[in-house]
Amino acid sequence: MIAGAFVDDLVLLTRGEILAVASRTLERAQEFGAQHGIERCHGSYEELAADPEIDIVYVASPHSRHARDTIMFLEAGKHVLCEKPFALNAHEAAAMVSTAELHDRFLMEAMWSRFLPANTRLRELLDGNELGEPLALEASFGFRAPFDPHHRLFDPALGGGALLDLGIYPLQLDRLVFGAPDEIIATAHLGETAVDEQVAVLLRHPGGGIATVSASLRANLPCDARVSFSDGSVTIPSMMHWPQSISITRGNSTEHVDASFEGIGLRFQAEEVHRCLDAGLRDSSTMPLADTCALAQTMDAVRAQIGVTYDADLHGHSRSQEDSVE
Amino acid sequence: MIAGAFVDDLVLLTRGEILAVASRTLERAQEFGAQHGIERCHGSYEELAADPEIDIVYVASPHSRHARDTIMFLEAGKHVLCEKPFALNAHEAAAMVSTAELHDRFLMEAMWSRFLPANTRLRELLDGNELGEPLALEASFGFRAPFDPHHRLFDPALGGGALLDLGIYPLQLDRLVFGAPDEIIATAHLGETAVDEQVAVLLRHPGGGIATVSASLRANLPCDARVSFSDGSVTIPSMMHWPQSISITRGNSTEHVDASFEGIGLRFQAEEVHRCLDAGLRDSSTMPLADTCALAQTMDAVRAQIGVTYDADLHGHSRSQEDSVE
Repeated sequence: MIAGAFVDDLVLLTRGEILAVASRTLERAQEFGAQHGIERCHGSYEELAADPEIDIVYVASPHSRHARDTIMFLEAGKHVLCEKPFALNAHEAAAMVSTAELHDRFLMEAMWSRFLPANTRLRELLDGNELGEPLALEASFGFRAPFDPHHRLFDPALGGGALLDLGIYPLQLDRLVFGAPDEIIATAHLGETAVDEQVAVLLRHPGGGIATVSASLRANLPCDARVSFSDGSVTIPSMMHWPQSISITRGNSTEHVDASFEGIGLRFQAEEVHRCLDAGLRDSSTMPLADTCALAQTMDAVRAQIGVTYDADLHGHSRSQEDSVE
Repeated sequence: MIAGAFVDDLVLLTRGEILAVASRTLERAQEFGAQHGIERCHGSYEELAADPEIDIVYVASPHSRHARDTIMFLEAGKHVLCEKPFALNAHEAAAMVSTAELHDRFLMEAMWSRFLPANTRLRELLDGNELGEPLALEASFGFRAPFDPHHRLFDPALGGGALLDLGIYPLQLDRLVFGAPDEIIATAHLGETAVDEQVAVLLRHPGGGIATVSASLRANLPCDARVSFSDGSVTIPSMMHWPQSISITRGNSTEHVDASFEGIGLRFQAEEVHRCLDAGLRDSSTMPLADTCALAQTMDAVRAQIGVTYDADLHGHSRSQEDSVE
């Protein structure tokens, strides 16, 4: 779904070309290609990796394949933009990053929300210290999904659960606003497939700023984000992963900033990839790999507390790499 | 401050009479009496307890005196409405409740918010199961208070900290919506007087409902409350301890219910006291002592985790009683 949306949004870019699509079967690749106007269709990711005309691969396989697929493409000399969540755990994320370094390739987590105009304005506010010290963040992302034990959202084999799929959006916002936490505590409701159908996390930061973050697959949460600063506040309205505006309050005065955009907003991250490659960079300063790895560590810490374990946590990295060679 | 506001709001009641005021000095009692039109002024709480014409005492001394003062009035045969937080800890609360039982007197925590029209509507929604199962609550109460180590908000000897003074409002809402929690976890920022200047709490409930609760003496928090149900949602707007409206969403339709009232809203709890006494009740079903004691236990659990300790925690109840005899 997100791959189709991304490809459709790329028509708004004036550069880059979608040369090929790959899927686990030729039929699925051809179906996607027909829907989105892509002629070259590969029936396996290995074929795509071997395609000499490809510079950058966008990885949108299930979470549970991100590490093996990304590593294979990097080893084949491709730059990679990998869907969020980047990996199932911090071990996988570290392996992906070190593979990119070894092969001198660009690598970024496709944290598209961070590149939207509302979040660009938020980053300016933070960088310019315009509202003083951030003190509190309240952010949630959750919707009532029909329960289906075989859907990836509920399947632990595919990295299911609210945390990795939805919680990552408010968690990356916490990282953007506060940086590293010095305490992470969490609670959750696990469903019958043993993934977190609802999760809440408190992150305390040096200086005392506290974030309350919630995600759910069973409740329609407010899905907004409110940041309290010492000298004002910021509201990112629902849906917080896809805001069309941002409200900035200083004293009694609130400024409502239009932050709408053409398309659905997935192209901004592709512009960042082009910008980085033009400049010879291998890491984005807006969504740095250090943040990606830190987010994976935070989610590992949360999962350890709430008792959600994936097979990849047990195998460690070496097994993932073996798998990827197939 | 709250005693003055309460007394002024009672002019809206058609029954009951404010017969006397007491303070720790006659001068302060006379000052309050002059301001609020009360003729009989007692220079000590003991004098008030001995006044045979008094039926009900409203206790609005500092938190740290609630237990001793309330117990003294109950032992003198008075009914008592005691300001929130009812006590510094669950030990004190239990002693107050057993004294009321022993002397067959009415006792209630002055949780005035619970009696406001918006919360009456919320209780109806909950009692009638109108929106299905409650799944999530996000509630905060906090404002940027000027730091003063001698102000009761920051003084541990007076039960200072954001939790007891402000956090109790979202915590009582959690109790109203979900009942007893099965897990409580918390983090906080302690200031230089070792009280919680900012605190956040997660409460998980049987069935998996999760509340995220925040309170602060240094950040202007959103100060609203949002409840997500299986079949809808409810928003209690800022200020959540004093709402003038309530919004109820079912599907795509939101109903904004006016819940404004004459005065400042403190009189509703006094009406409840009259109603209970008329019916010969010693406990309010809207703000039962069981909820009061449970809230005190929750706050004890939070303080144990965040490392905020009051002298009363070390003395236990017997010392408090001795103190009250003076």
